[in-house]
Amino acid sequence: MVVDGLELALESAPHLDFLVAGDEAQLAPLLAAKSRLTSKVDLIHTTDVVRDEDKAAQALRGGRQSSMRLAINAVGDGRAQGVVSAGNTGALMAMAKFVLKTLPGIERPAISTFFPTRRGASVMLDLGANVDCDAENLVQFAVMGEAFARIVLGLDRPTIGILNVGSEDMKGHKAVREAAYILQHSTDLPADYTGFIEGSDIGLGTVDVIVTDGFTGNVALKTAEGTSRLFGHFLREALKSSLMSKMGAVLARPALNAFKIKVDPRRYNGAMFLGLNGICIKSHGSTDAFGFSNAVHVASDLIKSGINDDIKAHFQRITRVETPDDGIEAPQTADAKDPHA
Amino acid sequence: MVVDGLELALESAPHLDFLVAGDEAQLAPLLAAKSRLTSKVDLIHTTDVVRDEDKAAQALRGGRQSSMRLAINAVGDGRAQGVVSAGNTGALMAMAKFVLKTLPGIERPAISTFFPTRRGASVMLDLGANVDCDAENLVQFAVMGEAFARIVLGLDRPTIGILNVGSEDMKGHKAVREAAYILQHSTDLPADYTGFIEGSDIGLGTVDVIVTDGFTGNVALKTAEGTSRLFGHFLREALKSSLMSKMGAVLARPALNAFKIKVDPRRYNGAMFLGLNGICIKSHGSTDAFGFSNAVHVASDLIKSGINDDIKAHFQRITRVETPDDGIEAPQTADAKDPHA
Repeated sequence: MVVDGLELALESAPHLDFLVAGDEAQLAPLLAAKSRLTSKVDLIHTTDVVRDEDKAAQALRGGRQSSMRLAINAVGDGRAQGVVSAGNTGALMAMAKFVLKTLPGIERPAISTFFPTRRGASVMLDLGANVDCDAENLVQFAVMGEAFARIVLGLDRPTIGILNVGSEDMKGHKAVREAAYILQHSTDLPADYTGFIEGSDIGLGTVDVIVTDGFTGNVALKTAEGTSRLFGHFLREALKSSLMSKMGAVLARPALNAFKIKVDPRRYNGAMFLGLNGICIKSHGSTDAFGFSNAVHVASDLIKSGINDDIKAHFQRITRVETPDDGIEAPQTADAKDPHA
Repeated sequence: MVVDGLELALESAPHLDFLVAGDEAQLAPLLAAKSRLTSKVDLIHTTDVVRDEDKAAQALRGGRQSSMRLAINAVGDGRAQGVVSAGNTGALMAMAKFVLKTLPGIERPAISTFFPTRRGASVMLDLGANVDCDAENLVQFAVMGEAFARIVLGLDRPTIGILNVGSEDMKGHKAVREAAYILQHSTDLPADYTGFIEGSDIGLGTVDVIVTDGFTGNVALKTAEGTSRLFGHFLREALKSSLMSKMGAVLARPALNAFKIKVDPRRYNGAMFLGLNGICIKSHGSTDAFGFSNAVHVASDLIKSGINDDIKAHFQRITRVETPDDGIEAPQTADAKDPHA
């Protein structure tokens, strides 16, 4: 899949060169069969791999000769400008953080990607790197997400929203309310903070950048993917249900294909680990060559963009806003006596 | 909308009688125009209302003569067997909890509803009543959700999953890992706990009952609704894109209509506040008469089912399992040194 994906990526980006880390005995025959790749690919041979079931800490300690680690090392020592992996997300983040380090001012990197909405496309982060997040983390995600939206989506001044259970100020838990306060009171943000948004705003494209913790973001992204697949399944079933509907589907086939391409998750494959001192892209593990080639394009575009210099410059400019000592207004509770009810 | 909804509900459930709380000056003419309703509806007159922007605590203190409170009071003193409201969710929960109290053993009620999946339908809770949840809350949601799935979906032995960012035991935050431990080690659960599930499992119908905190559940539900609407929007655009596709859509219209009915959110309108000592159903605020009539049917079905006696009986049987003193295995982290990285 990876070798096929590289060949596809070269079709629209013939200037790319690749270092491929893996078992030469497996890779050499695959590469030899693709004449266009031979002059474009150098191998980094290793037989050690990080497995999907490995824990991040374990991969970090034990996987020093793994293909994943050697690929990241190539970015660390300047032989490569970016790394793309379809492997274990936790291990990739741990190794990339260890080798590349985070950008100054960033506590924790976040996983970010863009996806289709009614208004075009939006960016969401974090998508799973950080299960627990405080307000400061969310604010950092907002600044990084703004740079990502500006550069990847080509927007002048992206809008930012924080994902919550309602749009009123008093909704949600402590981290989102404090992060909202900081974003509302920061005067030197490079973007427009527009307030809280709800899950239904994701598909509407209400904002360009959706800020959330890694737990909620991961669930939201996978729920949206699952709902798309469910919808597609119901639609196919409906169109197969009668002779008339089958004939209708034949007439509408070009339109239905265009629709299919529009919602094809492979087109949006390639999530960036934002906040690292280097370009690191995570491809879906179960994607195909087309999806992988898109992840390679994301890497290539981000390398060209200078996104990390952009993020660094913004963090130097931002004045830190602290939340008031007496805290933000308490959340709406179902029981006046018990703040947790 | 409410009066039209009651008329619709009577069509398939002519045995129902209604108490309607609200302004007689507004309601009487609406009811007079529906001859079928006059013998079926008694009015509880009040001009006070809970507004959407009211905080729960404020509504609880100040709204003692509001239509919402008077409707709940009618359940509390036995004049009604259940209450349906399309109003302010937080206020409805606060008032219902105050008037009806929770069932023995239940700390916090949860909002639950069912929705379509590839395998039929599933139940999810909490959908927004509890922004922060600990393991014990999640376990209580599992037991209540099981009863809801058994009764509403007619399942013998529903399966239960906890919504998480991955299926491995070490994934997720403390509350989900501890709740999983308790469910795994409880021998007297009336359901099968199958483990962690991800957002993509919701549409697949991997489990019958999806347990989650109110923040994540609310985002997941609204993300799924938003994605459905986005998908529908893209599909309509595609089918309007050419003469051929328009002709195709005409031929496939009955199939497309059947599909539309299948994913119509109005069919799934009516979320139950599970864990209260009474039947309390929340209708979407923006639904129409058809959606509201479905919420009335959910109330009627649950009243007949005796769901609260069922939940009470299960809580009496369950042996409490405690998590081990040394805690559950630590989460997978992106940095071995920092448990929050």
